Amino acid sequence: MNEFELIERLSRRLPSNDSLVTGAGDDCAVLDLGLPDRYVLFKTDAVVEGIHFTRETPPQKIGHKALARCLSDIAAMAGAPSAALITLALPAKSDVAFIEGIYEGIGTLARRYSLAVAGGETTTNPERILISMSVIGTVNKTRCIHRSGAKSGDAIFVTGHLGGSLSAKHLDFEPRLAEGRWLAVIDLSDGLAGDLRHILRSSGVGAELLSESIPISRAARLQARTESSTRPPLLAALTDGEDFELLFTIASRDAVPLLDAWKKQFPELLLTCIGKITATPGLKLRDKEGLRELTLKGYEHFSTPPQSQ
Amino acid sequence: MNEFELIERLSRRLPSNDSLVTGAGDDCAVLDLGLPDRYVLFKTDAVVEGIHFTRETPPQKIGHKALARCLSDIAAMAGAPSAALITLALPAKSDVAFIEGIYEGIGTLARRYSLAVAGGETTTNPERILISMSVIGTVNKTRCIHRSGAKSGDAIFVTGHLGGSLSAKHLDFEPRLAEGRWLAVIDLSDGLAGDLRHILRSSGVGAELLSESIPISRAARLQARTESSTRPPLLAALTDGEDFELLFTIASRDAVPLLDAWKKQFPELLLTCIGKITATPGLKLRDKEGLRELTLKGYEHFSTPPQSQ
Repeated sequence: MNEFELIERLSRRLPSNDSLVTGAGDDCAVLDLGLPDRYVLFKTDAVVEGIHFTRETPPQKIGHKALARCLSDIAAMAGAPSAALITLALPAKSDVAFIEGIYEGIGTLARRYSLAVAGGETTTNPERILISMSVIGTVNKTRCIHRSGAKSGDAIFVTGHLGGSLSAKHLDFEPRLAEGRWLAVIDLSDGLAGDLRHILRSSGVGAELLSESIPISRAARLQARTESSTRPPLLAALTDGEDFELLFTIASRDAVPLLDAWKKQFPELLLTCIGKITATPGLKLRDKEGLRELTLKGYEHFSTPPQSQ
Repeated sequence: MNEFELIERLSRRLPSNDSLVTGAGDDCAVLDLGLPDRYVLFKTDAVVEGIHFTRETPPQKIGHKALARCLSDIAAMAGAPSAALITLALPAKSDVAFIEGIYEGIGTLARRYSLAVAGGETTTNPERILISMSVIGTVNKTRCIHRSGAKSGDAIFVTGHLGGSLSAKHLDFEPRLAEGRWLAVIDLSDGLAGDLRHILRSSGVGAELLSESIPISRAARLQARTESSTRPPLLAALTDGEDFELLFTIASRDAVPLLDAWKKQFPELLLTCIGKITATPGLKLRDKEGLRELTLKGYEHFSTPPQSQ
């Protein structure tokens, strides 16, 4: 049992109450606090120096990333953010300008989405900076989308281009709040294959992806060309984390009308149908060679690029 | 400028919106999300290994403390908690039983107050365990109490016994949720003198405390008797952090009826009138020697016990 399996096991045993609509396992916790038409969304996320950023990262981008990660989860529930709290754990001798920069990055993004930053706490973490953000938001009860909604035959869609986020986008990504409120979604933080597996497990279904349809980012293609990288761009698009694009499924009869409406609503942002939901569990990829299983353990069969590429 | 002054300065510049009733500076952030009769309370707090607990601390107590600190702030706003989220930052090789113990401590306390634990996130903090808790709750709009409510002539009250919390109570304290809903309050996390100063600053008033009335804990008296300690117990009661008792002010004409009603409602918990609010700013202590100013910097004039003790 690894730590994440442990947390998943522990989370299942945690206490609930009448206000809890959805607890651990979805993008956000969903609470019914008595608002007639809306649920309250509740999300926390942390970024840590040396893991999610370095001392060389511009502090405004660190602040942006810390808040944007939570907002991406609010977007994935079709919600609107209301307020955030900052918990900043710092070494004793931290650079004042660096901390100001982190707050500036958080403040700028919050203003863009009319989000209040309702306070900041500090504590000491002697070895490295850690920023834990908490966000609450609301969502119309009829719009709130859970991961367990995928049905066999549904089309699978994803926004934007995938892969290679760590070369730049992970610090600059825009949370897809407007698009999320328009859709039914999950945000891509663990990589397309990983996050799609969450949907499949919650919904008790499988999926078949079309390798030719996966929208591979320019960064992933560039990385594949560098000497140091032997990972094909398709693998990057399937497995790289921190894309923060939106992934969702809809009944296939609604797919074409949705694409038409999307182009009118969000002409600047690519939306791609990448496959379909199947009744048989498991995640499969279809390419020129046929259909093959995507395994959990790092997709080793991709480490030599397939002949078709 | 120290870090805490910096954070205070930065917090004042943070963005607000229509939903924000009270932001940084009170025990909790207060939000109006559209509930007809209630505000939403929002609080985060973190505990860090080596600062708030050690590897020798029983993990159930660490979990208890992490959640109880936030609940004490909800209590201080006369609120009721609805849900909590756990953000656990861990070294790569953490002991499974230790983590289970932390979750157990959180879960046991949450069940006692019918609080849902709506999820747990983990991240890596290589050198030490850090637990950031986020709690949301609600409070009746007419009951929600802010720190800026103290008026000249008000009586100052405190629950329980103060001082010496670090010898045991800081890991076991009970958040005063029932008492808080019955009152108008602040919780004591920074020590009586420090937290009272927050009230005085917010309200633009001063206070005079009666040294004979301060309810000194048994732990503070015992500590003063040990060889290693030269701090008089009164100083401990005034300045020790983490008491997590409630501090509040009410109009002096209501003080006696309040004490009567308190004894009926909470017969097990001491409530003491410890002084009064004054129009002149500043925090003063009255003892047999007369009236003296309590200074910000560690109360050095107490380091030799006064003759009257």
